[in-house]
Amino acid sequence: MKALLYHGAGDIRYESMADPMPVEAGDAIVRVTACSICGSDLHIYHGHGFSEDRGFCVGHEAVGEVVETGRAVSRLRVGDRVMIPAAAGCGACRPCLSGNVIGCENGAAACYGLSAALQGSQAEAVRVPSADANAVLIPEGISEEQALLMTDALSTAWFGARSADIAPGSSVAVIGLGPIGLMTVDSAFVLGAHIVYAIDPVPERRALAAAAGAVALHPDEAVAVIREATKGRKLDSVVEVVGSDATVDMALRLVRARGTVSVIGVQQSRRFAFPLERAFAAGLTFRVGTCSVPEELPTLFPLVQAGRLKPETYVSNRLPLRDGAEAYAMFDRREAGTLKIILEP
Amino acid sequence: MKALLYHGAGDIRYESMADPMPVEAGDAIVRVTACSICGSDLHIYHGHGFSEDRGFCVGHEAVGEVVETGRAVSRLRVGDRVMIPAAAGCGACRPCLSGNVIGCENGAAACYGLSAALQGSQAEAVRVPSADANAVLIPEGISEEQALLMTDALSTAWFGARSADIAPGSSVAVIGLGPIGLMTVDSAFVLGAHIVYAIDPVPERRALAAAAGAVALHPDEAVAVIREATKGRKLDSVVEVVGSDATVDMALRLVRARGTVSVIGVQQSRRFAFPLERAFAAGLTFRVGTCSVPEELPTLFPLVQAGRLKPETYVSNRLPLRDGAEAYAMFDRREAGTLKIILEP
Amino acid sequence: MKALLYHGAGDIRYESMADPMPVEAGDAIVRVTACSICGSDLHIYHGHGFSEDRGFCVGHEAVGEVVETGRAVSRLRVGDRVMIPAAAGCGACRPCLSGNVIGCENGAAACYGLSAALQGSQAEAVRVPSADANAVLIPEGISEEQALLMTDALSTAWFGARSADIAPGSSVAVIGLGPIGLMTVDSAFVLGAHIVYAIDPVPERRALAAAAGAVALHPDEAVAVIREATKGRKLDSVVEVVGSDATVDMALRLVRARGTVSVIGVQQSRRFAFPLERAFAAGLTFRVGTCSVPEELPTLFPLVQAGRLKPETYVSNRLPLRDGAEAYAMFDRREAGTLKIILEP
Amino acid sequence: MKALLYHGAGDIRYESMADPMPVEAGDAIVRVTACSICGSDLHIYHGHGFSEDRGFCVGHEAVGEVVETGRAVSRLRVGDRVMIPAAAGCGACRPCLSGNVIGCENGAAACYGLSAALQGSQAEAVRVPSADANAVLIPEGISEEQALLMTDALSTAWFGARSADIAPGSSVAVIGLGPIGLMTVDSAFVLGAHIVYAIDPVPERRALAAAAGAVALHPDEAVAVIREATKGRKLDSVVEVVGSDATVDMALRLVRARGTVSVIGVQQSRRFAFPLERAFAAGLTFRVGTCSVPEELPTLFPLVQAGRLKPETYVSNRLPLRDGAEAYAMFDRREAGTLKIILEP
Repeated sequence: MKALLYHGAGDIRYESMADPMPVEAGDAIVRVTACSICGSDLHIYHGHGFSEDRGFCVGHEAVGEVVETGRAVSRLRVGDRVMIPAAAGCGACRPCLSGNVIGCENGAAACYGLSAALQGSQAEAVRVPSADANAVLIPEGISEEQALLMTDALSTAWFGARSADIAPGSSVAVIGLGPIGLMTVDSAFVLGAHIVYAIDPVPERRALAAAAGAVALHPDEAVAVIREATKGRKLDSVVEVVGSDATVDMALRLVRARGTVSVIGVQQSRRFAFPLERAFAAGLTFRVGTCSVPEELPTLFPLVQAGRLKPETYVSNRLPLRDGAEAYAMFDRREAGTLKIILEP
Repeated sequence: MKALLYHGAGDIRYESMADPMPVEAGDAIVRVTACSICGSDLHIYHGHGFSEDRGFCVGHEAVGEVVETGRAVSRLRVGDRVMIPAAAGCGACRPCLSGNVIGCENGAAACYGLSAALQGSQAEAVRVPSADANAVLIPEGISEEQALLMTDALSTAWFGARSADIAPGSSVAVIGLGPIGLMTVDSAFVLGAHIVYAIDPVPERRALAAAAGAVALHPDEAVAVIREATKGRKLDSVVEVVGSDATVDMALRLVRARGTVSVIGVQQSRRFAFPLERAFAAGLTFRVGTCSVPEELPTLFPLVQAGRLKPETYVSNRLPLRDGAEAYAMFDRREAGTLKIILEP
Repeated sequence: MKALLYHGAGDIRYESMADPMPVEAGDAIVRVTACSICGSDLHIYHGHGFSEDRGFCVGHEAVGEVVETGRAVSRLRVGDRVMIPAAAGCGACRPCLSGNVIGCENGAAACYGLSAALQGSQAEAVRVPSADANAVLIPEGISEEQALLMTDALSTAWFGARSADIAPGSSVAVIGLGPIGLMTVDSAFVLGAHIVYAIDPVPERRALAAAAGAVALHPDEAVAVIREATKGRKLDSVVEVVGSDATVDMALRLVRARGTVSVIGVQQSRRFAFPLERAFAAGLTFRVGTCSVPEELPTLFPLVQAGRLKPETYVSNRLPLRDGAEAYAMFDRREAGTLKIILEP
Repeated sequence: MKALLYHGAGDIRYESMADPMPVEAGDAIVRVTACSICGSDLHIYHGHGFSEDRGFCVGHEAVGEVVETGRAVSRLRVGDRVMIPAAAGCGACRPCLSGNVIGCENGAAACYGLSAALQGSQAEAVRVPSADANAVLIPEGISEEQALLMTDALSTAWFGARSADIAPGSSVAVIGLGPIGLMTVDSAFVLGAHIVYAIDPVPERRALAAAAGAVALHPDEAVAVIREATKGRKLDSVVEVVGSDATVDMALRLVRARGTVSVIGVQQSRRFAFPLERAFAAGLTFRVGTCSVPEELPTLFPLVQAGRLKPETYVSNRLPLRDGAEAYAMFDRREAGTLKIILEP
């Protein structure tokens, strides 16, 4: 089959690779009908390798159709339309069974497309291990595109917003307005925020946030504007969706005494300079981490079905999978107008 | 001064009474600039007397201007624009100080306008006991009309919705679409409901709920329609805003296993036939009671300031206080188009 | 095999019946090494039949050893030591997988031993449907006896206590001091209660509660004593563990304004006279229902392993299964000294 | 009067100073009957000056008797026995009124004894500003000694434990076993912890923790022992009660994926090297800050009255106030057996 393979920093190629086959009795093979590029794929693209492997298939956001099931698969049938959450677990421990894949007690939690150990899904087909647990039937009233955007982006955005303790009446900032950041703005409003400051250097992204009801700010002005607007009180909740020391530091400057910062941007800093003295004086809850997608879905499905969340708003491009290399380059340039890119095998 | 006085069932008169004076050192006198009629005023109007008194001033929703303060009043000044929450407490115990007037440890909690003990506020002026605690400054960005609607109606609606454990993604029913019921519909959406069924026999009220995004149903069809729409699963949360045995019973038929019913309609039943066997089999949380207005305000102020809640939508009439008797009669007839009536002294 | 079979009110017999066999591929057969009699078994014993069936095996609390597994069973192995929670679900839907058997979306939730549809476990062996989900491995550090007491009694007690919103510093009453009531007293202390009133007419049961740290009261004196001790304020949380209208009514008289009543006694009243007017005036949370055992276990296992909860304290008798008829009669007489009866096949 | 005055690092003297007098109408003067030395007093003693002042009175833990009240004081009377929480606020804003002194909206929150602006209470008498809000009547059933230990130590310990999200069944570590650390161990058990690891280099302190039911560990062995005991899973909740980078770092090594670290040791680090990459991979809630004493008291009073918490256990010395200089030196040496020192004027 054809797939997007990683050959080093900046080098993603559309090439042939072996068709995926069931390895364990619980595996299923899913023919991918649509996949997408995530901001965290850029970490791989930039060569911050999560592994030393080369030639493996990338990508962790996909939807498709079950075409083959191992003999221990009991809940899925060939022909089922499924979404594949970004990470898979053992599928047998209590956390996995209840949707907390990341908390897999057998240490089997892994994201697709980071190494040859679990091939990615930017491909014509993908092997899903323990598929009863790790593939999710797309429910009625959810389009394939919406389901694709819930395999990671919207689930992460929602998790980030609720991890920031956003409640009705909250004042909020979201730092970073890529697709996940924009969906975080929407999530904050559904959680009851009365005001959301949306911060990003790219004017087109700020315009989208403003269209969603946020007060859009350039990073250079954000701290000063928010301090003045709140008379120095600052904000109840801040969500960092970038993954740099500077933006985490900004988040810590924007939060009020006893407020909450939620960091969902992929972090690679080992010695972030945390202002412990200041945090102690004011009081702070600081949350860092990522979501377990299946845990978020029971809440998100009805909200998307009812149109309260519309993640499809942030799809900017649909390209054939064969143009994947150019799609990565385009997404990496953060060009005006480029947001979520969907690839079709 | 002039005021609306109660003389028995169906007999409210616009008459003269003595001007209110400070009795205790903590009292303040507020010149009423607007007051309103609440659904629970109809209980008095119908002669379900909360007391045997006659000739006292009715009403418990008012805003106005401080015109006199006792010598122990330290937070209010003459000239301040204030709202007067429906019930007053001692103002000195910890619950009162933190806004939980209803939980007053000195047993001083009382609603205005139920007896001669605490005269009502459908008048040109009203005495506010322990005014530092029992009058609230109207903050910037809140109109006088909005503040008036928060002295009871919106606060009760919000309390009812959150007492029903409504969370993002919830399915909800609201039974009874007077002003509080309609504000409960709005509150449910701000709390994240993905669908709200709004139930009332009056077509005009259903139309307003539909305009707010709800699925409007006549009581006769509600149980059947909701069971079918949810494939028998029924709803996460139901709010009863009427105060009759029949509607409480309906609420208990609409809620799913392990769901929550919140009853905020004024209840006068001493032996409601509760289906304990059925509730036990399914699991149920059943909440009954009313709100302490000042507890809800810190959440509601920013939501109203930001326009996420617009209680003023449900004002249908503005009349001079002198027409109060007719206003009561009109409100009691539940005529098409009559919702919240504001009276101006 | 031998088992206890129901032949009508008061008529439980130790008789032969067919050995259980796997029916579905997910079934397992468990050789029962110990089972026990629950207060709710007395409802069957008294002929309040949950079905019209006769000659079926009773009982829903058992531990044992897996002796046979259907071919779709993947998590259990022959020889495993397991506990069997009181109710079983489909084992495939998300609620079942996460431990909420009662919320089974396929409507498959059923308690063992109520009819011929799912034979009970007061027998030499029992069929466990969807055994991967419905049997639980006994973890290290939990004795077989403790595990048996967690298949229903302790799990229900714990659920009842936490459903009463007991928190550190709470004042509590527990009405009914059978084994579950006594474990509820212990649970209340683990949840942080500062005082627990324990109410029962049987002096020996009151003595056990007193030994556990509670203030023991006879039902005739409870309301008066508690009102005086709390200066009329009454209690934060009340748990009803009996299942009669009189005790539910007492619970509603003992709870403070805005407090919580949790009803876990099996209720058969269809028209309980609920004091809605009084509840409305004071504010109340009223919870009714029963637990889903597997949901409680992740919390209970470490508490029992660490000795913070000792359900084995309340075992009063160990008898051979063949004496089951006499055991039922003895338990039904509520004799001094009779609490939890364990039966050994 | 006589008092302990700060004259620079290591230089605390028992000297005369002017008697305190009411400055504002809301002030009260309290004759101190007992005061105590807090771990955070050592920061001052070591000259990490919170101010450049010299000659001011130190100390922020005291109980005593009201001897004079300003004319605006309405809730306190001369002769009342009161405890004085460590920090005072304006006493008029909603946060202050509800007990959240630290969140004082008028920016008036200040700790006693850090500068000449608000003189300390290691003295024969102390001025309490806005005394209605900032002094608390000692309730029946609480000894003066217990009340003294609740003005800061036990309240902070309890806050630290609950900020660590300790719940029934939790596994916990407490790092630092001074008086607050030991009370944190006790608090963790009341919150339902099934195991508490207590970590400190001083053997006598470890022995006290072991007597309280904890597993006592030397810091050098803690990480290895806990990783092995939990099979690498680590702990649900960790409380840091020291205030050094090394112990915060240890806390971050002891917490499980998605667990919570609560830091209540006084922090002075401006650039703590936070392992953001590791925290992101595992998921973490990190809380830093200190308590507002009056917020904790409604929960703590019944727990102390009922004997579930016994802070008096950790009093090691009672000395006359005149020996204060020696008391500071003794406490600073962390000698075996020296824990909480009470000073009597």
